[in-house]
Amino acid sequence: MNFIRTTKIFLIILIVTLLLVSCSNVETNTQTKIFQPVELFPEPARPAGQKDVLELRCAPIDTVHIGFIGLGNRGSFAIDRYTHIKGAKITAICDLVPWKIERAQKIIADAGLPKAIVYTGENGWKQLSENKDIDLVYIVTDWNHHTPMAVYAMEHGKHAVSEVPAATTIDECWQLVNTAEKTQRHFMQLENCVYDFFEMAEHRMAEEGLFGEIVHVEGSYIHDLRGHNFNTDPHNRGYWKMWRLEQNAKRNGNLYPTHGFGPLCHILNIHRGDRMEYVTSMSTNQFGMTEYAKHNFGENSKFAKREYKNGDMNTSLIRTANGKTLLIQHDVTSPRPYSRIQLVSGTKGYACKYPVQQIVLDHNYHSGHHKPLPKEQLDSLLKVYEHPITKEIGEEAKKVGGHGGMDFIMDYRLIYCLRNGLPLDQDVYDAAEWSALAELSEKSVENHGMPIKYPDFTRGAWKKLKKVKYYHK
Amino acid sequence: MNFIRTTKIFLIILIVTLLLVSCSNVETNTQTKIFQPVELFPEPARPAGQKDVLELRCAPIDTVHIGFIGLGNRGSFAIDRYTHIKGAKITAICDLVPWKIERAQKIIADAGLPKAIVYTGENGWKQLSENKDIDLVYIVTDWNHHTPMAVYAMEHGKHAVSEVPAATTIDECWQLVNTAEKTQRHFMQLENCVYDFFEMAEHRMAEEGLFGEIVHVEGSYIHDLRGHNFNTDPHNRGYWKMWRLEQNAKRNGNLYPTHGFGPLCHILNIHRGDRMEYVTSMSTNQFGMTEYAKHNFGENSKFAKREYKNGDMNTSLIRTANGKTLLIQHDVTSPRPYSRIQLVSGTKGYACKYPVQQIVLDHNYHSGHHKPLPKEQLDSLLKVYEHPITKEIGEEAKKVGGHGGMDFIMDYRLIYCLRNGLPLDQDVYDAAEWSALAELSEKSVENHGMPIKYPDFTRGAWKKLKKVKYYHK
Repeated sequence: MNFIRTTKIFLIILIVTLLLVSCSNVETNTQTKIFQPVELFPEPARPAGQKDVLELRCAPIDTVHIGFIGLGNRGSFAIDRYTHIKGAKITAICDLVPWKIERAQKIIADAGLPKAIVYTGENGWKQLSENKDIDLVYIVTDWNHHTPMAVYAMEHGKHAVSEVPAATTIDECWQLVNTAEKTQRHFMQLENCVYDFFEMAEHRMAEEGLFGEIVHVEGSYIHDLRGHNFNTDPHNRGYWKMWRLEQNAKRNGNLYPTHGFGPLCHILNIHRGDRMEYVTSMSTNQFGMTEYAKHNFGENSKFAKREYKNGDMNTSLIRTANGKTLLIQHDVTSPRPYSRIQLVSGTKGYACKYPVQQIVLDHNYHSGHHKPLPKEQLDSLLKVYEHPITKEIGEEAKKVGGHGGMDFIMDYRLIYCLRNGLPLDQDVYDAAEWSALAELSEKSVENHGMPIKYPDFTRGAWKKLKKVKYYHK
Repeated sequence: MNFIRTTKIFLIILIVTLLLVSCSNVETNTQTKIFQPVELFPEPARPAGQKDVLELRCAPIDTVHIGFIGLGNRGSFAIDRYTHIKGAKITAICDLVPWKIERAQKIIADAGLPKAIVYTGENGWKQLSENKDIDLVYIVTDWNHHTPMAVYAMEHGKHAVSEVPAATTIDECWQLVNTAEKTQRHFMQLENCVYDFFEMAEHRMAEEGLFGEIVHVEGSYIHDLRGHNFNTDPHNRGYWKMWRLEQNAKRNGNLYPTHGFGPLCHILNIHRGDRMEYVTSMSTNQFGMTEYAKHNFGENSKFAKREYKNGDMNTSLIRTANGKTLLIQHDVTSPRPYSRIQLVSGTKGYACKYPVQQIVLDHNYHSGHHKPLPKEQLDSLLKVYEHPITKEIGEEAKKVGGHGGMDFIMDYRLIYCLRNGLPLDQDVYDAAEWSALAELSEKSVENHGMPIKYPDFTRGAWKKLKKVKYYHK
């Protein structure tokens, strides 16, 4: 009896286990089943007591006291711009390098403004964030320090902004989101290209339906940075300890996506009614950096002989919940004209910024060949659809400068919103979404273009708002 | 004893099965293992007694007797061009529609040439291929008939050529390859864009190293065909039984890739030292066809209410064995300027045809901003690097016409090579590789961008040749 019972149990267990094995085979058989984007980065649950910061409003600040961390290329330009911004005070500055501090103080003094408090040394940036007089910490360091500094600033009650990309990993993106939600402080990524004149007019045209339903967009960062990346002289616009070369040497993907990506995400109203669902990415091999190093430093130089991981060109493709696609490229090595592409294609119209500005409007449904508007009509359309923000501040911005004015408009808008207690134009979810592409693309590239689920940094709240808004009192 | 032995066996089998289950989990855990492109279309072994047709040479034909199948838009233009080509004879013509046959005969008569033999009815095309006087069958029908007609022609000892795409499925690609290999006949896809003036000069510049190592290329078929696809009048350039609308209604992918793709594959020397390894593809939702149908036929029309599967924009990304990438797009619905992009980016230079012709040469390694050559230098460079083929026949081609001359150059080259017993410029592997993208992209789109292994239609012989050659006696 025992024998028969045991055999029975054994057979039942065997059958169940075999069934399990065969089920798991069905799971992996992609020929018979639709393949789903892989969830490499599942969304962590929102910690208790934390709430979203969509359209966050904080108490208005009459004069915004700012502490600047990082006084290199971008940092010193920022100091210069802020000498022109009303309602903002350059309270403190911080860097590791004495001559950069001196340069910044000189800019401030030349503008007839009082000297800033100086923080320096290993923990200077922490001390700056601990200063009770500061409202806003403005971070302009190498990429790796953006998130830790912003997190520390928010934890010390400051609003924080940082240069792009705000984060280098998905984990850092969540750190920014969680800290902003926990502290209910603003975090904004300093994506200046959102404020460029063409982009703003394009945004307004999109908003007003000129392109119909927007179907597909393209953006890029195509900018030959070989001269900068291999610049060994920090006095002459070289990166601090050549950090940017290191980024391109150690990672392979779309490392610097936000300039092209950001304005397009705003045009598509990402996390305001649509969201990015999955991404696939492909890099070429690396050719250009080694070739450049050989040519400039010699076949046997350390620069020629070391490894550079980043492929010359990365192309990433993203699909949204509403069935739109985004194409985002990164190439900082090839001899090509500068381009952010900035292409918007809809059912009723089309616009593109690079290599030449073009707008096509589909008034004649039967024409098989669409000609872009002639120059005078294009200019007139850009004038008619000029964005209220560039109308308001564009002329002054052009005078102050900074990438043709867009940097100044960005700073102006940031201070304007903080002074009026308004939501900022770009929120922490924008920063996370735009910066996240770097690590998502790295993982997809490593896995031969495997589609990866795009994390929803709003944790389900992406339909709460209906569109991007740039607030005005 | 029996009980103990049975329990032992049972436990051992249980442990082994559990191990198997856990192994199979490791297999599916993509976080710990590099994901490989999925082999949805494994290469079938080469049937016995068959050999490759790389650089196939056949007996020279003094006068090439041609039978044309399909006398619609493209077909009637082809007839017209062949009235100008020396050493070619329009021997037979075939169509189902009487007025198209009459139109073709009139073109022939107007050129002072003898009437062609007419084939018509359901089996007309088979009878044409069975005609012993014919050397070459020239197929200009809807897409679905290209492969069956070409296969039948080769099986009856003819060389065969067909309009693009040569095949609509991977299975059809293999039919073409296997039939060409078995019969040792030529099959050429009539990819005219290989012969356009800019593309030919770009090819020559690439060949001569002007762009350095080529890293990334882009091509497309962006052409608003709504007016043609929804044209219900076959007399007025409408497609026979609206077959092209059906293609876009029933399939979702990069359905018509070859115009942008073909010239780029030649520039990258695909299956002559490099090969395409895998592809990922993404389509937008469909918006534009329904919107067009509603606007033109009414909200309640059958055209407005039916389903159209093809997304407005498809973007496909391909990576090669040598680490290059190709970006190929398809959009026949959006109001955009016509574009095949035709972008070539290398370590030493850059060229692009659409939206504006640009060439950049990287002579100044330290410049961060590359300006395209001014117009007069661009024109002069295009002149210096003019391809020997367009030098030889370009002027006559412009006079005869056909997409600015490239159609005539294509026909001229085809007849030239057949008359001289030379390999054709495009072989059956080109046809298979370029046409295969349609089904590969459909499968990738359906599977959320899953990367798919690109079939090697040469079955391992892709390194045998070193570069694309256009032969001259």
